Amino acid sequence: MENKMEYKKVDLQDAEQIRKLTSPGRVFWGDEIEYDYHHDEMPDLGVAAPELVVQVLTTEETSAVMRYAFEHNIPVTPRGAGTGLSGGAVAIYGGIILCTEKMNQILEWDLDTMSVVAEPGVLVMQLANEALEQGVFYPPEPGEKTATIGGNVMTNAGGMKAVGYGVTRNYVISMECVLPNGDIMQFGSNVAKNTSGYDIKDLIIGSEGTLCIVTKLRMRVIPQPKVSWTLLVPYPNLEACVGTVPDFINSSLNPTAIEYMPKSLLDDAAQYLNKVMPHKTAEAYLILMFDGVSEEDVERRCDEAAAVCLKHGAEDVFLCNTDERKEAVWSVRGSALEALKASTTDMDECDIVVPRNRIADFSGFADTKMEQYDVRISIQGHAGDGNMHIQLMRDDMDPTLFEKRCPVIMKEFYAKAKEMGGQVSGEHGIGHARAEALETFMGEKMIALYQGIKAVFDEKQILNPGKVIRIKAK
Amino acid sequence: MENKMEYKKVDLQDAEQIRKLTSPGRVFWGDEIEYDYHHDEMPDLGVAAPELVVQVLTTEETSAVMRYAFEHNIPVTPRGAGTGLSGGAVAIYGGIILCTEKMNQILEWDLDTMSVVAEPGVLVMQLANEALEQGVFYPPEPGEKTATIGGNVMTNAGGMKAVGYGVTRNYVISMECVLPNGDIMQFGSNVAKNTSGYDIKDLIIGSEGTLCIVTKLRMRVIPQPKVSWTLLVPYPNLEACVGTVPDFINSSLNPTAIEYMPKSLLDDAAQYLNKVMPHKTAEAYLILMFDGVSEEDVERRCDEAAAVCLKHGAEDVFLCNTDERKEAVWSVRGSALEALKASTTDMDECDIVVPRNRIADFSGFADTKMEQYDVRISIQGHAGDGNMHIQLMRDDMDPTLFEKRCPVIMKEFYAKAKEMGGQVSGEHGIGHARAEALETFMGEKMIALYQGIKAVFDEKQILNPGKVIRIKAK
Repeated sequence: MENKMEYKKVDLQDAEQIRKLTSPGRVFWGDEIEYDYHHDEMPDLGVAAPELVVQVLTTEETSAVMRYAFEHNIPVTPRGAGTGLSGGAVAIYGGIILCTEKMNQILEWDLDTMSVVAEPGVLVMQLANEALEQGVFYPPEPGEKTATIGGNVMTNAGGMKAVGYGVTRNYVISMECVLPNGDIMQFGSNVAKNTSGYDIKDLIIGSEGTLCIVTKLRMRVIPQPKVSWTLLVPYPNLEACVGTVPDFINSSLNPTAIEYMPKSLLDDAAQYLNKVMPHKTAEAYLILMFDGVSEEDVERRCDEAAAVCLKHGAEDVFLCNTDERKEAVWSVRGSALEALKASTTDMDECDIVVPRNRIADFSGFADTKMEQYDVRISIQGHAGDGNMHIQLMRDDMDPTLFEKRCPVIMKEFYAKAKEMGGQVSGEHGIGHARAEALETFMGEKMIALYQGIKAVFDEKQILNPGKVIRIKAK
Repeated sequence: MENKMEYKKVDLQDAEQIRKLTSPGRVFWGDEIEYDYHHDEMPDLGVAAPELVVQVLTTEETSAVMRYAFEHNIPVTPRGAGTGLSGGAVAIYGGIILCTEKMNQILEWDLDTMSVVAEPGVLVMQLANEALEQGVFYPPEPGEKTATIGGNVMTNAGGMKAVGYGVTRNYVISMECVLPNGDIMQFGSNVAKNTSGYDIKDLIIGSEGTLCIVTKLRMRVIPQPKVSWTLLVPYPNLEACVGTVPDFINSSLNPTAIEYMPKSLLDDAAQYLNKVMPHKTAEAYLILMFDGVSEEDVERRCDEAAAVCLKHGAEDVFLCNTDERKEAVWSVRGSALEALKASTTDMDECDIVVPRNRIADFSGFADTKMEQYDVRISIQGHAGDGNMHIQLMRDDMDPTLFEKRCPVIMKEFYAKAKEMGGQVSGEHGIGHARAEALETFMGEKMIALYQGIKAVFDEKQILNPGKVIRIKAK
């Protein structure tokens, strides 16, 4: 993107003006800013100090702050809970962090249309829990439960249940947004079908706060499943394990989740949580979840699923239909990232997605890179949707060497993903950390379209600059 | 949109040049053009003669023709089977009609990833039938089965099964497109999750051929339901009939389709088809479809559904579980539009969508307009998704008076839809016929965003000009 930025630094006078536009005690300037606002959950990708942090409480405040920033050419980085993994909420050009974490009210449950209206700072776990209390179900369940719903929409978060229920995009009905110039817009409305002009709503979803700031969301909820069982399935090798997946995808068994874990990671994670797993000696594990309307329904599908797994060479099938057993398996799966972090000195990660039948191929490719570059690589993740979480572990490698090797390996991974018809990121997003990789991956013409779209919404390039698309120096 | 158009007229020399770029016998110029290419299925909305028609056979031909048009500033209207209802494929600025109807091959069935690659001219019924032969299921089923899949994607077609299976958008995995300057682009890829740059794929879906021309599609298919039953449910009045709907939406009964028909229309349509209906004396009818994995499963849900209907005042519930009975009910529903056309001299229509619990309200409002303007109005449609097909019938009214009243009534309808949180069109699209209504509905700021997006893709305004957004004279 052409660099038009002679961004203004936020001085005390700006801070005073912004204080007049917002609620008392919500503006932090200079030294008043907590270090938390300098980074997201991957500080290794870059730490940066904002000049001002404002915790907005209303759409009108958001609009007023944006209008001020627009008039004064101050960059604004929107932020929810800061749980991102690609630097999307880090203020790499300084300026203002506009934080929607305190806009955290659920405003309306409308069960006639099976929808809920929420402010962007509502936590995903809060939304999911209140849905259960209302007798309904909000399915997207990304690993990070303390993320905000606004952040989830802006990264189109997925999570383990995406196989059965789809990703966050599938649950966004409509949104209220503030444009970089302060205008308040409504994208979409509470209708089930729509062909009325361009689909800006879907363009905003996954745009990582680079086009506008979401200030209100109407999300879809669905009827609650009555029963949920889990299967833990040990395999003698990864190929047989992930080779089972296509048979689930094109069956009527309708699994909610299909995850896989290599033995080493299951061990690490179980040890990390001090959990006893029903089985732990196999090379690879498939973890399946089946939700349904009755025990008979779920039992029938689990029986059929077990037969499918055994046909593909599974060593055994462990049924987890008690809360305790289910919790053990899913907490171990859920703590994979933490366990990995604990197992090494430093790590880099990506979340490449490939067609659902190419995971074994990609995994084999990663194994060759592990040898070639002598770096420990862990792959685990969403076998059912082709989305892999790949970690490079430093262990006792020289830090400088590790820092040099990571981008080289990542480059090879992205090229391989492209060759396989995959994508750079399945759910973590681009942020600034993967913006260069995205450029290479997509090519000039696509990036030109992105730049054009960005400019339509944000002519001054003040909203989350340098994210998704890089800003090039003049 | 600012009028930059000093469009070039297509002369014989252009025709000769375009003949060199395309397959033999596929270019028609001047008098060689059949009248079919002057209109879509609603000729009342406007008829216009293109200067040249080209039936492209490949992506490369499409690209070459677009590049030629771009260089020479010739407007291009993309067209599939021409079955639209809003003038989207009518060449209102003359120029070229670029027809993809002969690009009609299914290129690949990939059952490992449950997807199919098709050229845009493949008919929806062809896709659906071949899917059945492959043992899988392509669910979107708009009323017009001879529409092309390219046209369905460009209007985000819905159809009766959208309640259970969603709309066309939910089945588009990725697309190859030709930009107005001739560039060939790939939007999306065969992955189940994606947060890699802006979601241009969803922006293109429903854009009615105004941003690019789709030349290849990868569509999602799903496992086949094993059993499908239908219920015909007579009610003493419309309120009770559509008042049942929310109880289905927030239950686990998961209906595939929820349609309603007033008595008069059921009568007309049954008579039109010479069909005997199981029941025909009630004021309003709900038609429900339930798909499932087994007879037991579907029977249980039909039993529960019947109880729900009776609770809401249904007079009876007729189970249609034989092919003959199902066919009778659905063919009568399917022929509503034809029956209405046959019942009057002339008609105007719209397909407003409102929140799913507001159909009775809207219908009541329409009744008052029927009296106020003394115009016969028929409303029927998709009770389960709030999408109504509304017809104004001229009958024996003076044609000039009818032509004067229709836009006035439509204007009131669109305003009411907006007030209710609805939208201009649920599935028929904007075309040129509803572009002014869309402008009023969306307001200046939204239209400015649309214009900006349009300009990113089509700086010269040569691709389907005047559709979705109007071109204003200088």
